Amino acid sequence: MASRPDLPIAVSLGDPAGIGPEVLAKCWDHRSGLDLATFVAIGDPRSIEAVWDGPIALIDDPRDASDAFDIGLPVIQLLAPETDLPGHPSVAGAHCSLDSLEIAVGLARSGSASAVVTGPVAKEQLYKIGFAHPGQTEFVAERCGIASANVAMMLAGPTLRTVPVTTHIALSSVPDVLTPALIESRGRATLRGLQRNFGIAEPRLAIAALNPHAGEGGALGREELDVIEPAIATLVAEGWRVTGPHPGDTMFHAAARCMYDAALCMYHDQALIPIKALHFEDAVNITLGLPIVRTSPDHGTAFRLAGQDRADPRPMAAALRMAAQCAAYRSDLP
Amino acid sequence: MASRPDLPIAVSLGDPAGIGPEVLAKCWDHRSGLDLATFVAIGDPRSIEAVWDGPIALIDDPRDASDAFDIGLPVIQLLAPETDLPGHPSVAGAHCSLDSLEIAVGLARSGSASAVVTGPVAKEQLYKIGFAHPGQTEFVAERCGIASANVAMMLAGPTLRTVPVTTHIALSSVPDVLTPALIESRGRATLRGLQRNFGIAEPRLAIAALNPHAGEGGALGREELDVIEPAIATLVAEGWRVTGPHPGDTMFHAAARCMYDAALCMYHDQALIPIKALHFEDAVNITLGLPIVRTSPDHGTAFRLAGQDRADPRPMAAALRMAAQCAAYRSDLP
Repeated sequence: MASRPDLPIAVSLGDPAGIGPEVLAKCWDHRSGLDLATFVAIGDPRSIEAVWDGPIALIDDPRDASDAFDIGLPVIQLLAPETDLPGHPSVAGAHCSLDSLEIAVGLARSGSASAVVTGPVAKEQLYKIGFAHPGQTEFVAERCGIASANVAMMLAGPTLRTVPVTTHIALSSVPDVLTPALIESRGRATLRGLQRNFGIAEPRLAIAALNPHAGEGGALGREELDVIEPAIATLVAEGWRVTGPHPGDTMFHAAARCMYDAALCMYHDQALIPIKALHFEDAVNITLGLPIVRTSPDHGTAFRLAGQDRADPRPMAAALRMAAQCAAYRSDLP
Repeated sequence: MASRPDLPIAVSLGDPAGIGPEVLAKCWDHRSGLDLATFVAIGDPRSIEAVWDGPIALIDDPRDASDAFDIGLPVIQLLAPETDLPGHPSVAGAHCSLDSLEIAVGLARSGSASAVVTGPVAKEQLYKIGFAHPGQTEFVAERCGIASANVAMMLAGPTLRTVPVTTHIALSSVPDVLTPALIESRGRATLRGLQRNFGIAEPRLAIAALNPHAGEGGALGREELDVIEPAIATLVAEGWRVTGPHPGDTMFHAAARCMYDAALCMYHDQALIPIKALHFEDAVNITLGLPIVRTSPDHGTAFRLAGQDRADPRPMAAALRMAAQCAAYRSDLP
């Protein structure tokens, strides 16, 4: 089903003791200057009141968000059994953040929200209440009925989009985990995601090498020859515009970035070092391969900053803007 | 011995069929605008004449470079038995590039040049004539009587300096090659290099983690706990200002870069991805741990560009400027 951009974006507030409530409230404060579409927060309004003194507009139905947005920050209320102090997470707060995520995804799945933006959660707290997924991405994928191998985490900034093939594993495990099949499935998820979420009809994918200088013909490692090149050949044979393997160090400067729409990277830091070096304030995490649009700001709960009015709302604003843009591209699809 | 910045910088032209002659000649053309100190080229003047029609001032003694510099590009002549066409390397050219390197280093070692800047060479050609070093850095270290474990390759740009602990090895070998002793020796070479070459009395070194999120306490790899943290503890106990292990992805944005003078990275791409993403046109390769100053532009021979007047002289100009600055810092040392 195509998303409808006239609907609000559903935002899960994330951990109530983190900076999620503060950065979202600041986004409402600056909604005009930041060019933000209507959004509705899902969570405990007390976590917002603890860090912000602007107006809150409690609503029950997301269809009321558009009118409410002019009056205050629209919130669909989830009351935690107790309230956390900013910077002091609790098990009750973890329950609230998980419920918030569940409802936000449900609203998008049911066509009541145009997209989901997820605020930062504390994984250690979630694990205590039985959360069994590596992160929010895998939870959202499961709720959407998609196998996690078929989704891809993209980090997108104004001049660069990167997707890691492997994510949260030890660097020494990366060579063993990389297979042609995994590179191909992440590559397809990325290419289709560029079409569906970014409106790029014939996307160009640059695939990174694993080894320095792309292995120098095998002298500095054989993964390029044995694993990456076969995956590229398969994707090219399917008709995709794919190049590589490119040496990691020479594919992220300005002239190189003009040659592709996304870079497929072999491991976490290879994807995240360049995006954060270039676009720390406005990089957005977007999950590709889902039936819904899901973005999130590329930062954590930052408990040590919470409640001090110091958190930077720009990453959340970038996540909201990208969610609205992707929802608009999707609504144009047949 | 302290270098004397009133002496010329000795520049080895590198492979005569590469872009080295062209970019150096362009630097002489724009010596005022690029704020360049006196330099003298060591190599075959015919490789310059093939790509540039400016004046060449042949000299025999580097002491004549300063007067000659106003008239033409000073060259200490090495005639190859035959001349290469630009873009077409040969064994004769490889001999010429190696002789040029040897003489440039000798001039700096003997106190006749303030520093050495090395132009790009073709390793495949050098290997054919019996060159047994992984690269120019190790050759220069040997000529200076320094073990290669005690030198460090720094990539330095206007807002970031990085040093890789391991360089040209397969990524899968990195975890096995990393030891506390190797990290410590590269760390010391970096810290002393910041003092000697950059005039930083109390340098701050940020040491990167190997694994994503710095291993998350061992859950994503144990190298931080077993290898990197012990090395940091040793360096701190010696009185150095060292921090880490820092997650690779969050140490290269602008605010993070303000917290240190150099980043010590665990592998090639971890050091080179951020420096090239941020400073592709003006990153300089500088060898730390030598008794002389040695820099080089951070690019290769680019044979496919040679002879077309298209090569960008900015990296060579940055290498010349940094060599002059480092030589000046050294001459101030007691």
